[in-house]
Amino acid sequence: MKTQKFVYDFSQGEASQKSLLGGKGANLCEMTRMEIPVPPGFVVTTDACHAFLDNEKQFPAGMWAEVEKHLKTLEKTMGKTLGDPKDPLLVSIRSGAPISMPGMMDTVLNLGLNDKTVEGLAKITDNPTFAYDSYRRFLQMFANVVLGLEGSLFEKAITAHKKKVGKKEDTDLSADDWKVLAEEFQTIIKKESGAPFPQEPEKQLERSVRAVFESWLNPRAIRYRRINRISDDLGTAVNVQAMVFGNMGDQSGTGVAFTRNPSTGEKKLFGEFLLNAQGEDVVAGIRTPRDIQELDNVSSKVFAQFKDIAEKLETHFHDMQDLEFTIQQGKLFLLQTRTGKRSAAADLKIAIDMVEEGLIDKKEAVLRVSPDSLDKLLHPQIAPGVKRDVLAKGLPASPGAAVGQIVFTADRAESLAAKGKKVILVRHETSPDDIHGMFAAEGILTSCGGMTSHAAVVARGMGKPCVAGAGSISIDEDTGKMTIGKDTFSEGDDLTLDGASGEVLRGACKTKKPTLSGNFQTILDWAEELTPSFRVRTNADTPDDSAKAREFGAKGIGLCRTEHMFFAPERIRVVQEMILSQTEKQREKALAKLLPFQKEDFIGIFNAMDGLPVTIRLLDPPLHEFLPHEKKDIAELAQSFDLKESEVRSLVSSLQEQNPMLGHRGCRLLITHPEVARMQARAIVEAACECHKKGIKALPEIMIPLVGAVAEFTVLREEIEQVVDSVFAEQKTTVPVKIGTMIEIPRACLIADKIAEHADFFSFGTNDLTQMTFGYSRDDAGKFLPYYVSERILSDDPFQTLDQEGVGQLIVQAVEKARTVKPDLKIGICGEHGGDPSSIEFCFHQDFQYVSCSPFRVPVARVAAAQSHLRKFG
Amino acid sequence: MKTQKFVYDFSQGEASQKSLLGGKGANLCEMTRMEIPVPPGFVVTTDACHAFLDNEKQFPAGMWAEVEKHLKTLEKTMGKTLGDPKDPLLVSIRSGAPISMPGMMDTVLNLGLNDKTVEGLAKITDNPTFAYDSYRRFLQMFANVVLGLEGSLFEKAITAHKKKVGKKEDTDLSADDWKVLAEEFQTIIKKESGAPFPQEPEKQLERSVRAVFESWLNPRAIRYRRINRISDDLGTAVNVQAMVFGNMGDQSGTGVAFTRNPSTGEKKLFGEFLLNAQGEDVVAGIRTPRDIQELDNVSSKVFAQFKDIAEKLETHFHDMQDLEFTIQQGKLFLLQTRTGKRSAAADLKIAIDMVEEGLIDKKEAVLRVSPDSLDKLLHPQIAPGVKRDVLAKGLPASPGAAVGQIVFTADRAESLAAKGKKVILVRHETSPDDIHGMFAAEGILTSCGGMTSHAAVVARGMGKPCVAGAGSISIDEDTGKMTIGKDTFSEGDDLTLDGASGEVLRGACKTKKPTLSGNFQTILDWAEELTPSFRVRTNADTPDDSAKAREFGAKGIGLCRTEHMFFAPERIRVVQEMILSQTEKQREKALAKLLPFQKEDFIGIFNAMDGLPVTIRLLDPPLHEFLPHEKKDIAELAQSFDLKESEVRSLVSSLQEQNPMLGHRGCRLLITHPEVARMQARAIVEAACECHKKGIKALPEIMIPLVGAVAEFTVLREEIEQVVDSVFAEQKTTVPVKIGTMIEIPRACLIADKIAEHADFFSFGTNDLTQMTFGYSRDDAGKFLPYYVSERILSDDPFQTLDQEGVGQLIVQAVEKARTVKPDLKIGICGEHGGDPSSIEFCFHQDFQYVSCSPFRVPVARVAAAQSHLRKFG
Repeated sequence: MKTQKFVYDFSQGEASQKSLLGGKGANLCEMTRMEIPVPPGFVVTTDACHAFLDNEKQFPAGMWAEVEKHLKTLEKTMGKTLGDPKDPLLVSIRSGAPISMPGMMDTVLNLGLNDKTVEGLAKITDNPTFAYDSYRRFLQMFANVVLGLEGSLFEKAITAHKKKVGKKEDTDLSADDWKVLAEEFQTIIKKESGAPFPQEPEKQLERSVRAVFESWLNPRAIRYRRINRISDDLGTAVNVQAMVFGNMGDQSGTGVAFTRNPSTGEKKLFGEFLLNAQGEDVVAGIRTPRDIQELDNVSSKVFAQFKDIAEKLETHFHDMQDLEFTIQQGKLFLLQTRTGKRSAAADLKIAIDMVEEGLIDKKEAVLRVSPDSLDKLLHPQIAPGVKRDVLAKGLPASPGAAVGQIVFTADRAESLAAKGKKVILVRHETSPDDIHGMFAAEGILTSCGGMTSHAAVVARGMGKPCVAGAGSISIDEDTGKMTIGKDTFSEGDDLTLDGASGEVLRGACKTKKPTLSGNFQTILDWAEELTPSFRVRTNADTPDDSAKAREFGAKGIGLCRTEHMFFAPERIRVVQEMILSQTEKQREKALAKLLPFQKEDFIGIFNAMDGLPVTIRLLDPPLHEFLPHEKKDIAELAQSFDLKESEVRSLVSSLQEQNPMLGHRGCRLLITHPEVARMQARAIVEAACECHKKGIKALPEIMIPLVGAVAEFTVLREEIEQVVDSVFAEQKTTVPVKIGTMIEIPRACLIADKIAEHADFFSFGTNDLTQMTFGYSRDDAGKFLPYYVSERILSDDPFQTLDQEGVGQLIVQAVEKARTVKPDLKIGICGEHGGDPSSIEFCFHQDFQYVSCSPFRVPVARVAAAQSHLRKFG
Repeated sequence: MKTQKFVYDFSQGEASQKSLLGGKGANLCEMTRMEIPVPPGFVVTTDACHAFLDNEKQFPAGMWAEVEKHLKTLEKTMGKTLGDPKDPLLVSIRSGAPISMPGMMDTVLNLGLNDKTVEGLAKITDNPTFAYDSYRRFLQMFANVVLGLEGSLFEKAITAHKKKVGKKEDTDLSADDWKVLAEEFQTIIKKESGAPFPQEPEKQLERSVRAVFESWLNPRAIRYRRINRISDDLGTAVNVQAMVFGNMGDQSGTGVAFTRNPSTGEKKLFGEFLLNAQGEDVVAGIRTPRDIQELDNVSSKVFAQFKDIAEKLETHFHDMQDLEFTIQQGKLFLLQTRTGKRSAAADLKIAIDMVEEGLIDKKEAVLRVSPDSLDKLLHPQIAPGVKRDVLAKGLPASPGAAVGQIVFTADRAESLAAKGKKVILVRHETSPDDIHGMFAAEGILTSCGGMTSHAAVVARGMGKPCVAGAGSISIDEDTGKMTIGKDTFSEGDDLTLDGASGEVLRGACKTKKPTLSGNFQTILDWAEELTPSFRVRTNADTPDDSAKAREFGAKGIGLCRTEHMFFAPERIRVVQEMILSQTEKQREKALAKLLPFQKEDFIGIFNAMDGLPVTIRLLDPPLHEFLPHEKKDIAELAQSFDLKESEVRSLVSSLQEQNPMLGHRGCRLLITHPEVARMQARAIVEAACECHKKGIKALPEIMIPLVGAVAEFTVLREEIEQVVDSVFAEQKTTVPVKIGTMIEIPRACLIADKIAEHADFFSFGTNDLTQMTFGYSRDDAGKFLPYYVSERILSDDPFQTLDQEGVGQLIVQAVEKARTVKPDLKIGICGEHGGDPSSIEFCFHQDFQYVSCSPFRVPVARVAAAQSHLRKFG
């Protein structure tokens, strides 16, 4: 049996071995191989970590012997020996997981110091202050990160000592002061941990390696992984590296730098450094670091070398790098390189610049930009550096920052906005009655509801920021107060929403406008160029939205919800008249009044989408959504139609439903009220014919919602076809009309072959399909879904990211069944998932012809679709 | 190419050819083959009908030639010729579908008469009155059933003629009178149908055959088929048969008889006859028919022959027969035999008697009883012959008849019942708050809700009659009035419900008590004996229900709903205390108070089910179901817990859900409130251990509801296992405890393999699974589901009969997936479908180990399960 190798010298590994050596270790190896000056060292692998954690915290057999062997090599290379009282080797211990992960044990510096070696270090450096300061730092770090003692214990001792000796700053303390403190620290360690500080360097090393492994399972690390969806199976590696010192005088220093500006993307070294300092001094912020460019003044040779290395690394890794370095007595060492984090704008600029520089090709550029960071560019953000006083956190339901005064009703939102005030509409949950207020508001905040609640869906459609389901907010509509913890807010109080993070912030924060640039368009153009066939459509209900979506590159409408057209004040009354009708004749009269409104909308939409397909969903919501529920409003409604209040009340109550989501709506309503379907079909086809006569190419696709039984589709298809034929005869022209259905009921997936026989297209309505497959109401799931996601009962919120395990199975079954009957059936998706990159990838793999999403999400979807294509076909 | 045969002589067919020859025709053939005297004739097949209807109402090629050929044979046999003015052959034309089907054209008698042949008939019979009466009857029938003219046109003419000639009764009219009327009838026919009455007998025949075929598609027939779920594809045959006359003097007569008493099952000829009469005279009820036994007095020879034939037919068909006969001048002819309809009690008695008589075996007896007629025997019925003034019709939600005074609230129901009044609880829909009122009431009537609405499910569980979703009833709870059409009802008004038909009847109808007999038990014993392994369990929540179900033969509990235990007054307060708790400690204190209640229930149930498995579902409904919603009740609740009313109101409102069906309930609630699961698990296991110590064999199966993700199950399983271990340690004993899940979420079916890895059993909760797979709320579907079923958009109400096409597919997938992982996984069903015969058959074919249904449904399910077994394995 071949013995497993648990330890790699920096010269033995390479960048591609991140899962074995961790990100930090793999890149240290790569730099070593590139002959970039890196202090020598070795990596204990993640395999060793797994073995350790799986085997009751025993190092795997042979591992420690390997460590000792590599230590010997390191001692030889450095010409120093660990524990040598005259010239001790000192090492740093750093954890390094395959994915960068704060929350684990991070770093122990100066390991190898003890009561004896510290003296040798003092002598050999001729700097006892440095030596004893290093020693006490080591004691402090070891106590804190290895033994888990509170850092404040040691800070208190330092403060007490300074008081005693009458000194103010740490830098005022002498070698003797630090020596006394180092002794005191050891006393504290013994008292608090119950065991003396290990003087033996090898013991120190063993304890530290063990601590790094154990830190993989500390609660902070687990929590971080849960939040960031990082697998618990990765494990961490340990990097053991010879110490170099940036605090050995004025020819020494330490710093960090990005190879390009991480905020703007500008191609210029960006960073800062401190002379005569250790890394932690930069972090502590006691001294103000200097701009990296000034290093040229300190040592043009070192700066030139550093610039050279930076460029070499960027070219090597084909990406902007984030570097850490130390200069020890004029000699430059790189301590880390990694792909640099950057702003959304920089992300775009760097990708495009690198194409121009020939570093990467267009495909790589398109693959590299993060669709979500693109999304940020389309919406205002809270200005960087603004202090964020977070009052509550809800779901990031619609991105962008919004600032305004609190209002609690849609009517107030509208009237204050009309006076030029900026308002934030705060509701328990919104309903179709609130649309005018949502339109008037800068942003929407709800205490209930999930990512696909009414507020969230409508806000995203409008491109307005929304924080949904902020459960810690309590709203008392009667008194007009909102309570968060102990704070109470009233109408007029300022509030800021960050729809991208879901945060609710106190007061009016400064915001930054969207920074749309030519780079944005460039990436979209490349995406388009590289993926010719897969289409992104939009969910749009108005001519304006349609035009906007087309600007963003939408290739048609995937979902036009006709009911949204019914809520304008002059229309809702007619809709109510229709619902309150007591005879067929009255009803048809009311419908006849609605026809011109609908037709006008469709003409506008066909105009905006000239030459592109427009999928129009027939009436979907239950009738009660169009009626008022408050006593006052019911009375008013009764009066305006000259009906008894009790009659109207009784009608409203008879239309009420226990579970409206599963009620009398969609095709169920159209089947019991076929006159509605006929009116809508007539409006669509008349509009299309009129457009056609004016030379506008209208391509209507009539979509029947909520089909779960074949006859639901065939009965309505027949009704619609009759209308289509009549309109063609009346108008003396024809247009291509498709009649298809939304697949959004689990049963529809199960009988998809039978439906496909009769349908011209399928559009998966994954919102409802997700609701029914999981049995989750999107309006109510806020009470448990966030907990489910944070506790990993579900890996993702299925309303944000399509659940491929369950819902996806139904979709795959439906697609397979349908294609056995109609291989060329046009299939798309119009749920909110149509804008989510991983869901788009799924649709792409099912050979969907298109995805559809809200206008503001179209660019993101286009890039995500292109990335799916490139990942599949290269 | 072999020519298709479209016409069969009675001597050419047999009973097994019902689908080709229709039920009536096939049996006429069979009797002919048995040499029973049947007037000769022939059958035109259903194939001819199909060809006719498919080919624009053209007879298929060759068919009419065959008819003519068979007519010739018939003429030869009878020695008479159609249209012979001296001695005309007369024939009857009768439709006959494979399944007996009123609503089609039925019978034309005396075909072959015209202005000439009527004179020949008068002469040859020497009875002009008979001849002209027969002629006018033929004209009338032909006009009505072939030409579609109103019967009243002719009745009016008769009335006018009687007035004119000063006669009172039809029997007073002379040959001349009838002759005049026959002329007058022809004038009416010409005027109303636009064409003269066809004098040519062959034309009469052709028109009649055509009319029978066409009648297959008349609206009444279509409607009948829809209601009775008969396929439109069957088509009808036509029987052409030589006429015999029961009105040719005192040696002639006509009658109907059953071979056994259809009401009691007694083995004695049962029926009636009229001398000197035609069949329609019996139906018209002008003369009072005589008991069949009196025929012995008229002609002991004929009676002996008839008894002999009756017995021969019963023995031949192995079932009780319904016979029609005519005696023409002392000669007996059988005109029809078919399986006789019978009461539920007779059904049982006949099946058992026939086993004793050796006519059939036990298997056949079990297969023959209708599970639904058994069901009727378990509930009171409206007494036969009672006049039914039907006010409204709802869904037949729970069988049995109930009579009582109307009350509109559960509290009134309880207080009036306490005073000894019988009440009917009338509600829009019931909720858990109404349980005490439902318990006190004789029956329940709701205006909303479907077959599995709260009212329906609870009523069936209680064995109480319920009519649900009677949409034409309008209830105004404020004024305490119920309106049906123009009638208004108040508290105290008498009302009768027929839960088996869904009818709501005016006033207090007389009812008949259930007639449970030893026969019932015999059939159940045979069912048991023949199907040893498949089990029927019961859904029961109390010791009483459990005991009752066991009496009915339940082999354990398949679903014990723990929440129903929470609604008793002394308990609901503690539940509310738990919900209103603001700290973990308060909550646990409240739960500790609930524990003894739960434990006591379980001890009672384990006692009743000693030695049989008891599946207990942990808390399923959302918390808001336990809180009041009325302002007054909220205030009271706040006061009793010393809380601010606004706090309680705000809690109640924060727990409200848009779609409670899809909300925070089941395992979702248990995961966010694990202390509830722990308390319930503890109550179950402590109860089981205590029973065990007393020698009672408790077999608890803890069922986690609403699982849709694997981790939901595993997280809760771990919680429960910890409790189980603790209780075992405390009690110093162990009992077998299974932990499984309800499969009721579509997603659970899709990932059933993954869940099966961890679960000890699956129980399909087909109520919720149906709701979610269809996207129907069972409480709201009443608005469209009845229409869907009547219009055949769905073949059945999926809440009554399991939808095998959709929901069944998910179940099959789940079973297959689960069994790949655990071939022996225990699988059952506990939805309402567990009591429906066709759903039981489906479960049987999926190799379920058991079905579970309400106690009163257990006998039906046992018989249905036995029938499934016998159909599969013989």
